[in-house]
Order: sequence, then C-alpha cells, then structure tokens
Amino acid sequence: MIHPVQFIRSASDALQTLLYTHWKKYSQVVVMTDKNTSEHCLSHFRNTFVNRDFIHIPLPELTEENKKLRSIENIVAKLMYTQVDRNAAIVALGGGVVTDTVGFAASVYKRGIHLYLIPTTLLGMVDAALGGKTGVNFNGIKNQVGSFYFPREVIIDPGYLATLPRREWESGFAEMIKHGLIADYAYFEQLINRLAAGKMTDKLMEHIIRSVEIKMRIIQTDFREAGKRKILNFGHTVGHALETCALQSGTPLSHGYAVALGMAVETALSVEFAGLEKATSRKIIRRLLEVYPVPEGMDTAMTDCIMEAMKHDKKNSGGEPSLVLLQAPGMPVCNKKIPESEIREAINHTLFSV
Amino acid sequence: MIHPVQFIRSASDALQTLLYTHWKKYSQVVVMTDKNTSEHCLSHFRNTFVNRDFIHIPLPELTEENKKLRSIENIVAKLMYTQVDRNAAIVALGGGVVTDTVGFAASVYKRGIHLYLIPTTLLGMVDAALGGKTGVNFNGIKNQVGSFYFPREVIIDPGYLATLPRREWESGFAEMIKHGLIADYAYFEQLINRLAAGKMTDKLMEHIIRSVEIKMRIIQTDFREAGKRKILNFGHTVGHALETCALQSGTPLSHGYAVALGMAVETALSVEFAGLEKATSRKIIRRLLEVYPVPEGMDTAMTDCIMEAMKHDKKNSGGEPSLVLLQAPGMPVCNKKIPESEIREAINHTLFSV
Repeated sequence: MIHPVQFIRSASDALQTLLYTHWKKYSQVVVMTDKNTSEHCLSHFRNTFVNRDFIHIPLPELTEENKKLRSIENIVAKLMYTQVDRNAAIVALGGGVVTDTVGFAASVYKRGIHLYLIPTTLLGMVDAALGGKTGVNFNGIKNQVGSFYFPREVIIDPGYLATLPRREWESGFAEMIKHGLIADYAYFEQLINRLAAGKMTDKLMEHIIRSVEIKMRIIQTDFREAGKRKILNFGHTVGHALETCALQSGTPLSHGYAVALGMAVETALSVEFAGLEKATSRKIIRRLLEVYPVPEGMDTAMTDCIMEAMKHDKKNSGGEPSLVLLQAPGMPVCNKKIPESEIREAINHTLFSV
Repeated sequence: MIHPVQFIRSASDALQTLLYTHWKKYSQVVVMTDKNTSEHCLSHFRNTFVNRDFIHIPLPELTEENKKLRSIENIVAKLMYTQVDRNAAIVALGGGVVTDTVGFAASVYKRGIHLYLIPTTLLGMVDAALGGKTGVNFNGIKNQVGSFYFPREVIIDPGYLATLPRREWESGFAEMIKHGLIADYAYFEQLINRLAAGKMTDKLMEHIIRSVEIKMRIIQTDFREAGKRKILNFGHTVGHALETCALQSGTPLSHGYAVALGMAVETALSVEFAGLEKATSRKIIRRLLEVYPVPEGMDTAMTDCIMEAMKHDKKNSGGEPSLVLLQAPGMPVCNKKIPESEIREAINHTLFSV
C-alpha cells in the first residue's frame, strides 16, 4: 500500500536504472521545479539524467505565501498548454512546498497522474515527501486543501543537499528530532548533540534512513490518519499555529523551527496531561530551546493569534484543540483535549518565560 | 471497495433509518444545494429530515459554465467560515454538476471528509453520482481537474424527479440508453420506445435500478479506469467535444443530448473499425437521431471545433483520439485509435448528412 523510497548513495547509476526500468513506460516525463530548484538543483538532475528526454516546466518561486489554489490553477494551465496526457508522469523536484503543491496538482490533474518526488531539502527527505500527503494553504491556514495521494516512488539523493542553507538544515533536523522524541530517545540525543556542535553532515545518510524508517513504519499502519499516524503531529498543533502567526506578522519562521518550538510547548503540557516526568520534560525543553532559541522580537503579543489559529487545525474535532503529548520519551499519546487556558499558559511560560 | 447505493421507494422511513444509524456519528452534517436545488429540492429534503439538525450551506447556481476551480475555492471558503471540521459529513443535494463540484470540494477539504450524494436529476441517479468520479472544468475543457473519491453512500429518491424539466429527462435517458448499447440491447430498445412515446415515467424505478446495476458492475471491476471502466465512455469522446463546442458557441447542449449524438457518430465508426454490422449500425443511428435530432443551426461549421476539443480528451494518450466502439450491440471494445480524418467524415456524414 505504501509507496517505495529509493536511496541514491552513489553517482547516477541507481537513477539510470530506475529511469530505464520504470519511466520508459510513460508517454511523457514532466519535471517541475520552482525558481529555487531551477537554479540550484536542475543541473544535478540533468547530469543524472543524461541522454533521457524529459519536458521541463519551470514554476515561479513557491513559498508558504503562494502555496495556494492559484498555484494549482497555474500548474494545471501549464500542463494543459503542454498537452500533458493521462499516461505521463510528473516529477516534482524541490523542497516540501514544491512537492506538496506539485503533488496536489498531479493528484487532481485529469483525476490523477503518476507522480515521482525528488525532495531536495532535508525536511523534504525525512518528512514532507513521505507518506502521500499533498496540499496547499487557504486564507493563511496551512494545508486546508489537499489530498492523500501516493507518489509512485520517492527518490532520496543527498547530492541535492550540497547547496542547502543553514536555516533549511535546522528545519529538517527539527522533524528528525521529533522522530526521536516519539520513537527513539537515543536518536533524539544524538541529533541534538550534532546540531549543538554544528556537525549536521556527520552520519547524515544514516540519520536520514533512520527517520524514513520511523515515519514509514508509522504511516504503514494508518495512512489516512484515522489513528496512529496522528503521533507524527507531535509539536505540530502549536507549531502550525506559530508558523501561521509568524507568517502573518511578516517574520516567517521555517516549518521545522516552528515545530521545534511547538514541541517544547507540548512537552511542557505533557507533565500535567500525560504523566511525563517533570525532570525529563525540563531536560527536553532545555535542549530544544538551546538549538532552537525563541527568535528575537517574538513575545506574548503573539499568543492570541496562536490560540486563534489553533482553532482551524485539521486535527480538531468539535472545536477544542486536540494534541499529541508524551507519556515518556518515545511513548506518545494522541487526542488529548487540553483546555485553551492551559495551552495559553504553557506557551507564555515555556516560550516567553512569563 | 465500491460505495453502496440506497434506493428510497417509500416516504421518508428509509432515510430516517439511514440518518439515525449512520449520520449520528458525525460532528456536523452539512447539506449543500445550489440555487436550483435550494428552490426545488430542499423542501422535500427538509420534510424527510424532520427533527434532524443539519447545517444548510446554499451555493449560487452551478452550471457547466461555472463548474470551475473558483467554485471549489468558494465552497472551501464557506466550509472554513462555518468551521466545518474533519469529522463532519457533507451531503451534496443536486444534479450532476452539484455532485461533481461539491464532491470534489469534499475530497480535498482538509484532505477529504465524508461525503453523501443525493442526486436530484435522472442523469445524476443513473450516472454522475455513481462511481466516485468528481471534478470541474478548466479553460472550457470538461472535468480536467478532479479526483476519484467514493461517497459513503449514494441515496436515490425518485421523489426529487417530480420537478424535473423535459430537457433533463432526455439527458438522463441518453446515459441509460448507453447502458443498453454497451450491456443489454433489449434494454436499449425499451428505453428508446418509451422516449419516442413520451412515456418516460413508465417503469421508471425499474429502469433506474437496471442502469445502476450495469454501471456499478462495470466500475466494480476497474474503478480507476485502467481498463474495463472505459466502456462507459461510449459516445463520450465525440459527445464531450460536442458539448464543449456547443457551450463555446453560446448554444449549450445538455450532457446527455451531446452523448446521444456522440453515440450516433461512434456507432457509425464501429462498422469499419470494430466490425459492427452495417444494418445494425444504421438502425441504432436512426433510432438515436429520431429521439435526439440534431439541433437547428448546428452544422459543419462546428466540426473543426469538435476535432480540436477532442485532442484534450483525458482518455487520449499520445495525442490520437481513442474511442470506445461497438463490435455488436452489448459488446463494446476500448482504445480504438481512429484517424482524425475518419472521425471528421463520420461527424459530417452522420450528424450533418454531408
């Protein structure tokens, strides 16, 4: 049921094999990049795909700000203009915003055509490109419109990370850290240590594989997020809201950074509402905020916005925020309904020391 | 895998049962109607659903002209404004355009929420609402953007047909006639006879059930239209193109009417390209055009447009029109690549006697 993930460890051989075994069955192979990946990733892609014809459709820069239905409209118009038919394959080459947006377009264009994802950011490789969620934002609320749509394959080639800026490394590491907290505490500690030491590329492939394993194992049991998959939302209820408000206030925060802060708040709530040991909670929060300090200028003035944004969370039912908390490191628990006043207090106390 | 279909034969008892067994599990039940069904169908619905709370969201009139991504945007905005959550159910009450459009919106809102379809037209009951296809038009080309998304249930209540205009009866009968031609020739003859005699309501429920049986049996074997489901497209390659061109020329043709004319053309092509007996072909065409005469003012001036529109057909691969033809009545064959010149000639000859 779940899609395969292919790791490219050496040069272009593996990709070549893939191409000639899988891709020759398509009428057309359409590679879509946004402005960023056209500049930084397309040449690596072209080198790998020497001698193979493909159609390249460049898109304008895709960001959280224009990850909207209008971009889907734009992509569909380009696909129609290029006369892309139902037996074509689309390859999305880019970070999480590109794979989410192009993935959604591929899932609805002629009611769905085959999709390959080549994530070019760490966040994409360990999270966004895995598990078949696609989507765009709506009225500033994240991923309100989208689909569950499996790519035929996700291709992970760390060669693309060579040009990745530091901010993006931090963002990817935050999701990996989450994998540690919900499934493997020793892995959490390893990652925090590497990040604190600025040695993010040490044992990188090993870490990516570990994160893919954890995420895919969870999704396998519940791909439509009826139950267990929800644990992947640890840090995200507060994190998404934070991301939304930071965006609205004109000082956008990377997704991972927002999730890291969200995990700190949700770890704090875990003491009273899930029985996490107080000392453990403190230690996790301290280590998180050490590598993801609360940005300058962000303060209690944002708390109202965060509380409001949380109401639109897809995971809510009946209006009350529903959180994933930790009973212990590696032991998450879902669907915890927490009173708003408690969440508000935890945000103010954990992030803004009030 | 396929969704259930519930036939309502008497009063509101069955619906009440359905409501109280299935619907009470939802956080909210949201009923969406367009301008037409708000006027003509909502009161029947309210009578049936007495004592049950639901949220009614009225939409502007939905037609082939505004069956677009903008309407999806509008529906999503209304759902968000009403704070419809992920555990709600959407009920689409209307004809094919309403169930296609609202169905698509339900399939992508928060990545999909539960959907019930109550078709209020004959075409909806025997075709559009069955089988999980949703979608909207794009740049004037039909259903270019959409999804495969199963409703939880399709509820067929012929009570809604009381206010159906004649044009809509013809449209629904065309799809039923198609079911006859691809699966049951005796059924085809019965239907044509009723239509010719203007007695469309005779044995109506029996006919609806027969059509639902035929369509559902075909979909069951192939819901993503990789193979056998394609036979349901008989008449549609030419029919869709005709519908598109009639719309563009400002004299819209109902979907069913266009399909009926499309079936005439495709039956003509079946002689040379699928071995259909010439006499049989002539008889089918004569009977089709007897009840679906070519509208006044439609002539060879439209042929270029039809040929061009056909190129955008979702069913094409590699640019050449791919048709469903008849080897014999009840024996369709798929994926017939027909040279454009032959199709052009068949259109001119069959419809415009040139």
